[in-house]
Amino acid sequence: MRKELTLGLFGFGCVGQGLYHVLEESAGVKASIKKICVKHRDKPRPLPQELFTYDRAEVLDDPAIDVVVELIDDAEAAYDIVKSALQKGKHVVTANKKMLAEHLEEIYDLQQKHQRSVLYEGAVCGSIPILRNLEEYYDNDLIKSIEGIFNGSTNYILTKVFEEGKTYPEALATAQQLGFAESDPRLDVQGFDAKYKLVIAIAHTYGLFISPDDVINIGIDRISDLDLKYARENHLHIKLIARAIKIGNRVYGFVIPQYISDSSPFAAIRNEYNAVSVEGAFAEKQLFVGKGAGSYPTGSAVLSDISALSYDYAYEYKRHHRDHGVEFSNDLSVGVCVSFKHGAPVSLRDFENFESGYAADGREYMIGQATLSTLRRWQEHEDIGIILKPDAAFVPVSRPSESAKAGSYAA
Amino acid sequence: MRKELTLGLFGFGCVGQGLYHVLEESAGVKASIKKICVKHRDKPRPLPQELFTYDRAEVLDDPAIDVVVELIDDAEAAYDIVKSALQKGKHVVTANKKMLAEHLEEIYDLQQKHQRSVLYEGAVCGSIPILRNLEEYYDNDLIKSIEGIFNGSTNYILTKVFEEGKTYPEALATAQQLGFAESDPRLDVQGFDAKYKLVIAIAHTYGLFISPDDVINIGIDRISDLDLKYARENHLHIKLIARAIKIGNRVYGFVIPQYISDSSPFAAIRNEYNAVSVEGAFAEKQLFVGKGAGSYPTGSAVLSDISALSYDYAYEYKRHHRDHGVEFSNDLSVGVCVSFKHGAPVSLRDFENFESGYAADGREYMIGQATLSTLRRWQEHEDIGIILKPDAAFVPVSRPSESAKAGSYAA
Repeated sequence: MRKELTLGLFGFGCVGQGLYHVLEESAGVKASIKKICVKHRDKPRPLPQELFTYDRAEVLDDPAIDVVVELIDDAEAAYDIVKSALQKGKHVVTANKKMLAEHLEEIYDLQQKHQRSVLYEGAVCGSIPILRNLEEYYDNDLIKSIEGIFNGSTNYILTKVFEEGKTYPEALATAQQLGFAESDPRLDVQGFDAKYKLVIAIAHTYGLFISPDDVINIGIDRISDLDLKYARENHLHIKLIARAIKIGNRVYGFVIPQYISDSSPFAAIRNEYNAVSVEGAFAEKQLFVGKGAGSYPTGSAVLSDISALSYDYAYEYKRHHRDHGVEFSNDLSVGVCVSFKHGAPVSLRDFENFESGYAADGREYMIGQATLSTLRRWQEHEDIGIILKPDAAFVPVSRPSESAKAGSYAA
Repeated sequence: MRKELTLGLFGFGCVGQGLYHVLEESAGVKASIKKICVKHRDKPRPLPQELFTYDRAEVLDDPAIDVVVELIDDAEAAYDIVKSALQKGKHVVTANKKMLAEHLEEIYDLQQKHQRSVLYEGAVCGSIPILRNLEEYYDNDLIKSIEGIFNGSTNYILTKVFEEGKTYPEALATAQQLGFAESDPRLDVQGFDAKYKLVIAIAHTYGLFISPDDVINIGIDRISDLDLKYARENHLHIKLIARAIKIGNRVYGFVIPQYISDSSPFAAIRNEYNAVSVEGAFAEKQLFVGKGAGSYPTGSAVLSDISALSYDYAYEYKRHHRDHGVEFSNDLSVGVCVSFKHGAPVSLRDFENFESGYAADGREYMIGQATLSTLRRWQEHEDIGIILKPDAAFVPVSRPSESAKAGSYAA
């Protein structure tokens, strides 16, 4: 009943090697790796040389290969591989979040056109089966929000900085040694990686294909020592939270660090663990926790996708077909705590609703509601710290042409 | 592509009414309730009288009804309804864990025989999609353990007792008022409800159909004030933990209260929330948290099953077909803390490995490794407190015919 699958891999780094070992130990999945296409001829490989090729055609043009598993770093090259594989009638499993976030609508179209499946559970929060649950289990529920810790390396860094008093560069270096951090650490620490995952999650939660450029991402690299001191004095953690919320017919999405109180379930999510909280209208909040990075957790998610292909599974993108009249918007104000040196371009007038301000240790703090476009303007100055309040309210901002507000959402 | 479904309900209590409302609000699921079979003629009903019937044949013999949704209390009557529905070519959705735990193998056989599907996500941990994930997502992973807080009302009671200093009867009464507790509270507080769910989870985790009678369940009703005092003094919580672990080719399962340290993810699971931790060989520990009881969370899980039927979903019981040579066993010793009054039949010789003992406030305490059969013997005396250690080790006990041990598992 289940098909035996023949796999062709692109890339054999951390996740590829994890997949290889997981596959060897999993009796249930009948899949074998026929060929692995890699870039560097001179790297030592832990497997027999005849398994490797440097010519992509040896994988893409081999009619015996049913499934292409794409695990390379370069997003544009990856997209090219995915496109070719679909055109040649192969299914695809990929964990490349940047490629997916930038090309999701095209990949959706290509799947329809070629009647082949692209699965990518490993791209969003590693071992947590969030896409499968959004597609299959929550398909009937009206989802109010999806939010969480989507990036393992920044969470690892923040955990080490908070719990072990490490400096930021020390913690980053350890994360990279352990294989959690991307080769370009800016993708992690500036929130791009979390944003790509959020863009993919939004497609499966709200049926919207949006460009990553439309989503604001503020990183943890602008968290100052004084922000850390403020957090410690107030028994708060700081976590990089990716979040999408639906208010009325609008979906808002953003990646911004947030002060987190001890009572939040996110406070207990440490090191490279990820967490996703899904708030349904009826099932209420559900939390999924698991390792978000590392070769085995991600390899395991990739293998689950391969396994799903053995019984012809494909994402249905049900909400994309159903939810009409829902649109993505950035017209939102958020409860934020801004810290900056005297002279930085932050003023009382920037706030929709100013709550309090004070100066300490040569730095000024202002707390209140500010719009996402104000946050984008502040973000241009890298010494302005931008961290959401623990109980941040999210309030739609009317555009001039509108009068009524659609309600609000509290974190 | 998706079928429109016509539903016949049995029972219209807490979950049935929750389902009705959830269904009304969910645009995505094309399903309508044609008839609701109830028992009591004189109960006021919130819906038009013509929707109700007192004759089960009006549902079971109606060829227009595709799906029977069974939500009654009585396990034997429920089994009878499920059997008849399958015989008459209808699919079934049920949340009756006692019925399922006692008849799962027969229900499996009936599904094969009649080629109809029985889904029961709502039976195990309310809104948490654990069965679907075990069936679909973890199907390739080698699961080391599945454990968690499977019963919302005992967790609610323990939370209130610990956090608000309520007495046990006060906390139980509130749980019943809120609709969390079963009509017979012994099912909850003595661990039967959690055990039924564990038996169902074991079928989908390890492919074994076992009788609930073979699984030891020790309740929270024998937790004494001194046990609570001990927990508070040592900064511990007490949670009722259901657990199945695989060591070598044996699966062990039991429901026993456990002292839980602050660093355990279970410590943060409060009130009626449930949590399930799945430990895979590769994906490592994954935690699922959600409301385990209440009309909307369970109604929402039931609706997810109905929705799955609209695209012909059926459990494949993949591990039942695959895992040969795996057997259920009770030959295990566990790290336990026993409390009792002087004169109770507990002695040093009961322990495989005795660690420490002391006497305080007229009660004696002994800590060490004891076998599950010793726990069963102690359980016959209701004033013996039996609570697992926070870091309890689980060690297989060789039967006389065996020599080698297969390893052990630490909580």
